[in-house]
Amino acid sequence: MKQKVFKIINVDDDNYLPSKLFDIMIVVLIILSMISVILSTFDNIPLWITNLMSKFEIISIVIFTIEYLLRIWTADLLYPHIGKIKSRIKYIFSFMALIDLIAILPFYLPFVTNIDLRSLRLLRLFRMARIFKINRYTTALNSVSNVLIKKKDQLISSLSVVFILMLIASILMYYCEHDAQPDVFDNAFSGFWWAIATLTTVGYGDIYPVTILGKILSAIMALLGIGLVAVPTGIISAGFSEEINEKDDNIEYCPYCGHKLK
Amino acid sequence: MKQKVFKIINVDDDNYLPSKLFDIMIVVLIILSMISVILSTFDNIPLWITNLMSKFEIISIVIFTIEYLLRIWTADLLYPHIGKIKSRIKYIFSFMALIDLIAILPFYLPFVTNIDLRSLRLLRLFRMARIFKINRYTTALNSVSNVLIKKKDQLISSLSVVFILMLIASILMYYCEHDAQPDVFDNAFSGFWWAIATLTTVGYGDIYPVTILGKILSAIMALLGIGLVAVPTGIISAGFSEEINEKDDNIEYCPYCGHKLK
Amino acid sequence: MKQKVFKIINVDDDNYLPSKLFDIMIVVLIILSMISVILSTFDNIPLWITNLMSKFEIISIVIFTIEYLLRIWTADLLYPHIGKIKSRIKYIFSFMALIDLIAILPFYLPFVTNIDLRSLRLLRLFRMARIFKINRYTTALNSVSNVLIKKKDQLISSLSVVFILMLIASILMYYCEHDAQPDVFDNAFSGFWWAIATLTTVGYGDIYPVTILGKILSAIMALLGIGLVAVPTGIISAGFSEEINEKDDNIEYCPYCGHKLK
Amino acid sequence: MKQKVFKIINVDDDNYLPSKLFDIMIVVLIILSMISVILSTFDNIPLWITNLMSKFEIISIVIFTIEYLLRIWTADLLYPHIGKIKSRIKYIFSFMALIDLIAILPFYLPFVTNIDLRSLRLLRLFRMARIFKINRYTTALNSVSNVLIKKKDQLISSLSVVFILMLIASILMYYCEHDAQPDVFDNAFSGFWWAIATLTTVGYGDIYPVTILGKILSAIMALLGIGLVAVPTGIISAGFSEEINEKDDNIEYCPYCGHKLK
Repeated sequence: MKQKVFKIINVDDDNYLPSKLFDIMIVVLIILSMISVILSTFDNIPLWITNLMSKFEIISIVIFTIEYLLRIWTADLLYPHIGKIKSRIKYIFSFMALIDLIAILPFYLPFVTNIDLRSLRLLRLFRMARIFKINRYTTALNSVSNVLIKKKDQLISSLSVVFILMLIASILMYYCEHDAQPDVFDNAFSGFWWAIATLTTVGYGDIYPVTILGKILSAIMALLGIGLVAVPTGIISAGFSEEINEKDDNIEYCPYCGHKLK
Repeated sequence: MKQKVFKIINVDDDNYLPSKLFDIMIVVLIILSMISVILSTFDNIPLWITNLMSKFEIISIVIFTIEYLLRIWTADLLYPHIGKIKSRIKYIFSFMALIDLIAILPFYLPFVTNIDLRSLRLLRLFRMARIFKINRYTTALNSVSNVLIKKKDQLISSLSVVFILMLIASILMYYCEHDAQPDVFDNAFSGFWWAIATLTTVGYGDIYPVTILGKILSAIMALLGIGLVAVPTGIISAGFSEEINEKDDNIEYCPYCGHKLK
Repeated sequence: MKQKVFKIINVDDDNYLPSKLFDIMIVVLIILSMISVILSTFDNIPLWITNLMSKFEIISIVIFTIEYLLRIWTADLLYPHIGKIKSRIKYIFSFMALIDLIAILPFYLPFVTNIDLRSLRLLRLFRMARIFKINRYTTALNSVSNVLIKKKDQLISSLSVVFILMLIASILMYYCEHDAQPDVFDNAFSGFWWAIATLTTVGYGDIYPVTILGKILSAIMALLGIGLVAVPTGIISAGFSEEINEKDDNIEYCPYCGHKLK
Repeated sequence: MKQKVFKIINVDDDNYLPSKLFDIMIVVLIILSMISVILSTFDNIPLWITNLMSKFEIISIVIFTIEYLLRIWTADLLYPHIGKIKSRIKYIFSFMALIDLIAILPFYLPFVTNIDLRSLRLLRLFRMARIFKINRYTTALNSVSNVLIKKKDQLISSLSVVFILMLIASILMYYCEHDAQPDVFDNAFSGFWWAIATLTTVGYGDIYPVTILGKILSAIMALLGIGLVAVPTGIISAGFSEEINEKDDNIEYCPYCGHKLK
């Protein structure tokens, strides 16, 4: 029985029909839950939709709770070598389980405490991550995230240089522009907001320099912004090229005569 | 006779003069048709141009119709192994034939039904795709689209992560900014519009956060927007490099025993 | 004598001192000429600077004219195998010579005709191209332009797809937004201006959609804009990688024992 | 004693605890110093914080001064082969030492001269560069900067083409738009500001063309802006790929005769 439940809720077993149906149901629920959150931001929603949505919310929370409890119950099958209690504790503190808990907790908390954590309902959005577990692009996504993980050090160090650059530029910009536009550049945080908009080339147009010095600094930052795109892109490109080469570099010996080839 | 017509309207036969002239005529008609659609959006067009345009429209539709019928007639030469009727049905439902039909249909429908589908005239624009059939860049374009097709899975899975991220960010942004700017961030769709403008770094400036929380979220999104450019670019770069390497990797036979390796 | 003049004005001969001095003088003159054009756009320039600039203009035109005539005179040494007159005609119609002529012509024309071509003075700006002839980055620039030339077909075909896409999008956008914003989207050209601002992610903010349909079209275009950056970048990246690999792939035989290595 | 001090303040010695603690203290001081500069730009800072900050400034300057003097004192251990005085002079004029001096000098100058250089306090921001000395990403950052240094020539020559292009475009744009928007495009510098905003695709929206000619020029510039991103990205991508390949290319000796090949 427990084995069966584990098999059904375990996503990886894609050929087993009940498992597949279960996965589809959960994803449909997550998407509907998402749509319900989106709809709730619109004004003039007809009353029957609001009613439907609140009923659906209760149902989905109940299903998500059952799923969560079943996952804890079968955690010892997920980590078979570390004991019944240890495996469950390990599961509860796993990333996916925490997201699942966060998704259902805000609904129950008002019953036990006075704190209304319903505004945390939004955290349920992160359950969307589960969607990637069933689609056929998981392998592709893994190879993308592998490259990002492998190049993590280079990416983080490049971005931290950029961050320090932005800090310095935001303070310099504050001193350039504060006298000319005291309302726009009112403190270093405004400068940082400008630095983000400029370096990432978003340029909303709510904040920009008007003095000559500020414009020169802005021009330098905008040109450096090209580097902010070019360097990570270069790192990631090299990562993907490297991954492809690794797959190809396996044939080092002729499998028929044993001679070394490269 | 049918063979000859097929040869003429079949674009690939570039050395045969009538075929080439036919292709040029069709492309010129498509371009003129495009210019006519563009011109019709301008005010104060002199009457003689409007008249000329409506005459030209009738002529071009007639020619496009004849071309369409000829293509159906010769479809059994295009797919020679599957029977006369089957080949024509196959052709009618091919991508290019549907575009051709869509380009001429809106003109004829008002005669047979009461529905005025003339606003669908714009669909004729998609005929522009035919232009790529005759220019000498077809090979180059094919190698570009090959890379995109080969890397489809990685690209789609990356973009679907981005899409979910945008959904989450748009809802979060709505809750951050709705109280401060109820008219600008009026629902989650506005949030999504902001998310697009920020992640793609377009930044029109019609919608941007004013609260501290909103600005921090926007800064995170703008920085993630770099990834939105860097990851697909990396994937595509690696795809192009791979394609070049494949051409170079000519070790297909072991030089020592002569066995085929790949 | 002619040989000497040729040697001096010929840029490539970098070790010969007079040649180097001549090159530096010409570049300094071009830069000063550029600064003079820039300064002339400012208001409130003191009179003595305006006087200085007009004197400088006469001097620089005289020197550029002498240089141009000397280059024509020594053209038979540049193309030694095709006869005196032929070589000069060939030189006069070469790209660099035409730019040189364009730079000096607007000054002389008012003397011979009534047409005042002084507004063509701006064409002198293109003389800036000469600067790249003397700096030490010529080799680097050549390798960059080699890659661009080698990948020309792929780049042009990608960009022509983008161009047709922009044409289609600009017309569709006109029909989406014309009723809501008749002053902003007044014709298809405005739509094209919007398409450029969106696809290249510039987003000035002077033109953007306000209707739901328009915003959806804009979102699609903005996301396609990522492809507009990613595809050419991928092509160019692969081109640079290829160039590097070509340089490395030369060692195919051991230079010491003659054995084939790869 | 001197050996010990050198060991402590020398950043590279990461396993030695006092050295590590010293590094952490300096970095914490730099970060606090940064926060203090940022806070000083905010209005309505409570008096006790302002007092705390001014006291902290004195303490940090004292510590930075001691550190600076210790580094000069131990400079002969850093450059052991060039004599006591020579090594110190060499150290004082090294890049890092100049930044350290610039960080403390503005505090002392008011005591000796009448010039108030306290506005140069901002220069202390550059001390942030020290942070990269202790984090574990130094290796990653080095490999990034190695690629940038190796590709310096190609990057600089590409960017100088862009610079000249921007100069030409800014002057052309001035002539296109000056009559239509005399206040916005008041001189060539405004044109340059527009060229930067367009080529880097920032597009604040404070300056954009309104005439047909200006819009066409702007469209061309925006499309060239893609090249401004694509070319450096391609160069850097190839650089990273090359670096990875160099590590892999271990055919340094001919496997047949044992001769060194590269």
